[in-house]
Amino acid sequence: MIDIIAFDADDTPWHNETLYKLTHEKYEALLTGYHSIEWIQKKLFETEMRNLHYFRYGVKGFTLSMIETAIELTEGRIGGREIQKIIDFARHMVEAPVKLLDHAADTIKTLSKSYTLMIISKGDLFDQESKIARSGLCDYFKHIEILTRKTTDTYKAIFKKYDINPQRFLMVGNSLKSDIFPVLELEGQAVFIPYPLCWEHEKVSDTDSNQKYYLELEHIAQLPELIERLDI
Amino acid sequence: MIDIIAFDADDTPWHNETLYKLTHEKYEALLTGYHSIEWIQKKLFETEMRNLHYFRYGVKGFTLSMIETAIELTEGRIGGREIQKIIDFARHMVEAPVKLLDHAADTIKTLSKSYTLMIISKGDLFDQESKIARSGLCDYFKHIEILTRKTTDTYKAIFKKYDINPQRFLMVGNSLKSDIFPVLELEGQAVFIPYPLCWEHEKVSDTDSNQKYYLELEHIAQLPELIERLDI
Repeated sequence: MIDIIAFDADDTPWHNETLYKLTHEKYEALLTGYHSIEWIQKKLFETEMRNLHYFRYGVKGFTLSMIETAIELTEGRIGGREIQKIIDFARHMVEAPVKLLDHAADTIKTLSKSYTLMIISKGDLFDQESKIARSGLCDYFKHIEILTRKTTDTYKAIFKKYDINPQRFLMVGNSLKSDIFPVLELEGQAVFIPYPLCWEHEKVSDTDSNQKYYLELEHIAQLPELIERLDI
Repeated sequence: MIDIIAFDADDTPWHNETLYKLTHEKYEALLTGYHSIEWIQKKLFETEMRNLHYFRYGVKGFTLSMIETAIELTEGRIGGREIQKIIDFARHMVEAPVKLLDHAADTIKTLSKSYTLMIISKGDLFDQESKIARSGLCDYFKHIEILTRKTTDTYKAIFKKYDINPQRFLMVGNSLKSDIFPVLELEGQAVFIPYPLCWEHEKVSDTDSNQKYYLELEHIAQLPELIERLDI
């Protein structure tokens, strides 16, 4: 029996990684005179990983990493005008319309009639709140939790805060590392719905993913039927 | 009677604006060859206000505004090396030790024996969580809420979430605009403890502050005595 269904935000009910991919392409175009695309991608990812400790997730941290990488890759020769363009990318990202995945709105609306829904999302507080508001889905979610990391400890704190029995809790998300594995470890239930794009940092090794049992769906519209079956 | 005491974070139990002031000084030194300090300050504040809509509060948004202002003030002539220095200021800010105000630790420890304490803070989620963790005071607070804005609506949502009766709730903070006025409007109680420095954006007009009645203390060590008097 399930009482509460929690959804990840980015790339679960709405597209997000697509927007990052677009920004990556604009960024690569800006630096293409200096280095190959592969090298730009490699160096940017390295900077992002190094900066996670300082700036965590979200558009602003990503932008600072883009600027820093551009300075490094051009040995400081990058001009103020180009750096201004990178900041403009950021402004464009936070203003971009939130595009829902197919069937996401209907599915969430349907489920909200029988279950308590919540969002458990990782990232920058303002980015996330703003996207939830712009998604038009806010009213279907009873609780919204934005975390700096999704680990067994942070899920445990949420279970305690809302007095949730993990066995009656279902998490839905597109990241095995953040949405699925920690919840399974706490004896909750979890449904993995992969998104066509996955940030390198969220990937898990095949060994890891083969060693654990989790439910997987192709798209969110299949969720109500699966939950009905689980719920019998 | 009071059940719950909520503290603002920055500049209430620990110093924060001091760190921003130090960074401002380093930033001004970097650009002093181009413009007067007053002009640099004026333009940076303008950029911050314009960017609030996109980047909200916190070190990362502040850093993007510093970079953007530097580009504007130098008409794009600022070099990559200087911009790298600005990003290094940011890294220094997020790593700086959290310095408690005098008597803050003792006061909070004492109050935690008789009251439920919480933190209600505004800003960047990661900045705030990281400072709370580094303050060493985390265990004294039962609930921690980080908000993107502090308004009557966001306070109302917290009262609902934790089933708080505003009349048994006391907010302690250094901003009339964010900590005191919205709480008074909801019939809660509020104690203003000004910090020697105040960000321009948090200032309220004298007319506003004269029209409302609030309690004011010089320093946090006076809080237990005041609460004891309120509580009779």
